[in-house]
Amino acid sequence: SRNDFIKCILHVPPSSLITFTVLLIQLSGASGGKILVFPLDGSHWINMKVLIEELHAKGHEVTVVRLSDSWYISEKSPLYTSVTIPSPGGFEQNYFEAFLFRQLEIRLQGRHASSWYKLWSHIQIELLVVQQFSLLHKAMSEVVVQMFEDENLMQSFHEAKYDVVLTDPAVGVGAMLARRLRVPLVFNVRWTIQGEAHLLIAPSPLSYIPFTATELTDKMTFLQRIKNVLSYNFGMYTMSYITEPNYKPVIKKYFGPDVDYSTFFLDADIWLMRNDFVFEFPRPTMPNIIYMGGFQCKPPQPLPADLEEFVQSSGDHGVIMMTLGTLLGKLPQDVAEEIAAAFAQLPQKVVWRYMGQRLANLGNNTLLVNWLPQKDLLGHPKTRVFVTHGGTNGVQEAIYHGVPVVGLPLFFDQPDNLSRIRAKGGAVIVDIAELDRHIFADALKTAIYNSSYKENMQRLSRLSRDQPVKPLDQAVFWIEYVIRHKGARHLQTQSTKMSWFVYNCVDVIAALMAVVLLVTFTCISIVRLLWRIILVGKKVKHE
Amino acid sequence: SRNDFIKCILHVPPSSLITFTVLLIQLSGASGGKILVFPLDGSHWINMKVLIEELHAKGHEVTVVRLSDSWYISEKSPLYTSVTIPSPGGFEQNYFEAFLFRQLEIRLQGRHASSWYKLWSHIQIELLVVQQFSLLHKAMSEVVVQMFEDENLMQSFHEAKYDVVLTDPAVGVGAMLARRLRVPLVFNVRWTIQGEAHLLIAPSPLSYIPFTATELTDKMTFLQRIKNVLSYNFGMYTMSYITEPNYKPVIKKYFGPDVDYSTFFLDADIWLMRNDFVFEFPRPTMPNIIYMGGFQCKPPQPLPADLEEFVQSSGDHGVIMMTLGTLLGKLPQDVAEEIAAAFAQLPQKVVWRYMGQRLANLGNNTLLVNWLPQKDLLGHPKTRVFVTHGGTNGVQEAIYHGVPVVGLPLFFDQPDNLSRIRAKGGAVIVDIAELDRHIFADALKTAIYNSSYKENMQRLSRLSRDQPVKPLDQAVFWIEYVIRHKGARHLQTQSTKMSWFVYNCVDVIAALMAVVLLVTFTCISIVRLLWRIILVGKKVKHE
Repeated sequence: SRNDFIKCILHVPPSSLITFTVLLIQLSGASGGKILVFPLDGSHWINMKVLIEELHAKGHEVTVVRLSDSWYISEKSPLYTSVTIPSPGGFEQNYFEAFLFRQLEIRLQGRHASSWYKLWSHIQIELLVVQQFSLLHKAMSEVVVQMFEDENLMQSFHEAKYDVVLTDPAVGVGAMLARRLRVPLVFNVRWTIQGEAHLLIAPSPLSYIPFTATELTDKMTFLQRIKNVLSYNFGMYTMSYITEPNYKPVIKKYFGPDVDYSTFFLDADIWLMRNDFVFEFPRPTMPNIIYMGGFQCKPPQPLPADLEEFVQSSGDHGVIMMTLGTLLGKLPQDVAEEIAAAFAQLPQKVVWRYMGQRLANLGNNTLLVNWLPQKDLLGHPKTRVFVTHGGTNGVQEAIYHGVPVVGLPLFFDQPDNLSRIRAKGGAVIVDIAELDRHIFADALKTAIYNSSYKENMQRLSRLSRDQPVKPLDQAVFWIEYVIRHKGARHLQTQSTKMSWFVYNCVDVIAALMAVVLLVTFTCISIVRLLWRIILVGKKVKHE
Repeated sequence: SRNDFIKCILHVPPSSLITFTVLLIQLSGASGGKILVFPLDGSHWINMKVLIEELHAKGHEVTVVRLSDSWYISEKSPLYTSVTIPSPGGFEQNYFEAFLFRQLEIRLQGRHASSWYKLWSHIQIELLVVQQFSLLHKAMSEVVVQMFEDENLMQSFHEAKYDVVLTDPAVGVGAMLARRLRVPLVFNVRWTIQGEAHLLIAPSPLSYIPFTATELTDKMTFLQRIKNVLSYNFGMYTMSYITEPNYKPVIKKYFGPDVDYSTFFLDADIWLMRNDFVFEFPRPTMPNIIYMGGFQCKPPQPLPADLEEFVQSSGDHGVIMMTLGTLLGKLPQDVAEEIAAAFAQLPQKVVWRYMGQRLANLGNNTLLVNWLPQKDLLGHPKTRVFVTHGGTNGVQEAIYHGVPVVGLPLFFDQPDNLSRIRAKGGAVIVDIAELDRHIFADALKTAIYNSSYKENMQRLSRLSRDQPVKPLDQAVFWIEYVIRHKGARHLQTQSTKMSWFVYNCVDVIAALMAVVLLVTFTCISIVRLLWRIILVGKKVKHE
């Protein structure tokens, strides 16, 4: 048939051949899009990289914007070309780790203390976070200036004619860049500046949508709903306090005086949510929200030989695995000693990612490691329970592999993530400020020996694997969809273009009330008039 | 390999063989579910049948509940077993057609009349519809009694152990049956008793969600929003007037005194919507809503030879096709004459499904038929425009095949369907009460010769075909999902279990306002007290 093809070619006039070649080039161009990625560093980068790997494998050309002092985002990669922006500095990895550790210390000072002292440590942490995030957003606004003022860079961005900007909108810089370049925008998102991402884009009745960081569920008592409403209002105020003053001058300079920071987020054509309704409480959603929760999950690979041997030595008791995420390798010594003592009591073997000082209470059954193959160990049939801080990646992997969780929530979304698994019957949560060896050992025993935890996680696992399209394929499909159709504006609701005033029909309600009042007033006036006439008539009669 | 299989069997001990056979039976039982369908008749049956065909092809066992005087749902079918309920009567096909024709007559009486007269004919139609639908729901409540009182029938339903009830919830009987049998529930839905189906289940801000039958879009002026809010309230009142009194006694008898008719709809595990966001304005949605708009669309088959010849004879001018749906084969004679005259003016050939009396104005270019292969003709490259009443099926097929529309909306959802296509630039709408040969010919010329109509419909066609999963596969996946997991309650939001009072946090707002008032009052009291003390002090000083 190759000969047929050549024969066929020879019979075609040359002008058609050129058209044919041009067409081929256009077609090959159409299959591979040009994607500009503005990622976030840290754990956010870990899952953005999963997307980039898949996009690269599908033949797309990826450019990643990174800061010069990036923690994890390397300058050179076979997956992407990078563009490095000089960093304003101040957010090196060490600095951020110290900030997290400081939070933990404040929280632990409140240990075994009165409720009032705990409230005070809560306020201290809140103030620390507000201060640090305000500095972070100040730095980010400087990044915007760095980029937009670099004419060569902006020129090269324009000339590259990107098909789409892909960004993590926990910070709005990627969205600003997309608007500046007039390029369609796709989010890889779980948080925006208003907390959990749905809050910004989808209707969120506070009667059953728990606000970020409240640890509430979708079933709330009257008092919990009061807490939820107050938390929402307080949270919105705090977040606008953190962002608005930092971005205002920058936005005014590049986008005009009346532009609100939150509007950049509403530009997004597609919101790829690192979430789904196996994990999240069911809630209203939007046409341009695509759920890709668990997109990073993969079947387990065999463990390294020595780890496999250790795991097998656990026999029927099985293995406990513990890790508190990429950023926090150690704990305050006294807390770590209590954890070690609890582990030592149990018949299970323990694999614990821990990089702190030597622990006196360490049992023979506990293996300390600097790194562990999290998903392979989670997918191992000997694994009985996963002790985790409750980061999104870890929690999604626990669901995928159906492993019960003991949660030690530390910062950010971790308490909320864990409270969701607890509400579905798959997790025991331990407050690190209350933790001692007995409490921790009891939590582990409950998760291991009360079979409902395993059953519930297995059920979640079955549900999360039962989807018409795999989450990662879904995500890539919608990025390519935006490339094919040059955006997806037809999936954006009109609510993104409305003031709260019009959105809530305040004007309509006011007008209708005015009419009702007018009619009522007129009726009353007429009745009074008639009444007087009658009275006057009576008077006349009486006289 | 058959020999191998037999050899293999011979080496297996007999007890294992029995286990194996039982397993095979269980497996075949697992792959084929038992589905009880309570469909609606008329055009609703046409698309329910598409689902049933696919479910049958996948090896599911389908039972269809039909009424003894059903229009289209035949008793015997290779696709399903049927159960016939004695009909209370009164809604034979002729009767319903007469009801539709009467509506049309009232509307046409208002032709060329004053606005007041038009309003009056509008009110007349509204009253007629309310009266007829009230009778329909009365009959349906009798169907419920017929079913529930038939002990043998209910016994056989219980014994059949259905995996899922599939119903069209324009009427709530199927949902009531599902609750009675305690079987998971899936909707094939576009309308419930509260109008467009989203209104009952998803948040629907009236600022950009046009209420059913208003013909408004998602971009509304202040006056349009007033119209929308009033229509919504009026519509909700009318619908509860039509249904509540008819179902109340039945519901009280079988489900208890405090059960509301609308709650049966909220039971649904999955809402398969005959809708998507290519057709519908983008709006909030819910986790258990699956869009399967256009699931009935298929690539065109070749036309019958004589029709193909007629179509080909149109040359470059192409073909106009017209049909007003399955129920309305004819029009009032004078309107039909105007339409015929308009067609006669044009250079296109016309295929018109018309079953009325002989038309004096009929042109040589117009072919009258009793039936036409709608999707094959829509998919034919010679077809230039589709004249339709705007039923859901026809409009979805016009989108799928990318054919411009001239709409003659008559009843129910038809004006809304067509206004959506118009808003997207694919349709010209003609008011049948205004129609004359000039207006109609102008509309046809606009849709044929203004290339934007074709371009817009082609764009919608591309979008509707660009989905990760085909709509029909999507629908079947989710029905099977409900079978596999014995429901999908984890996708139902808590809002389905809340009173409007709690849902809107009225109690929380009242409590917070009470606190604010109390604090304000206390502050004022203290200030007044202090003021008095100071005044008294001054007085004392002065004295």
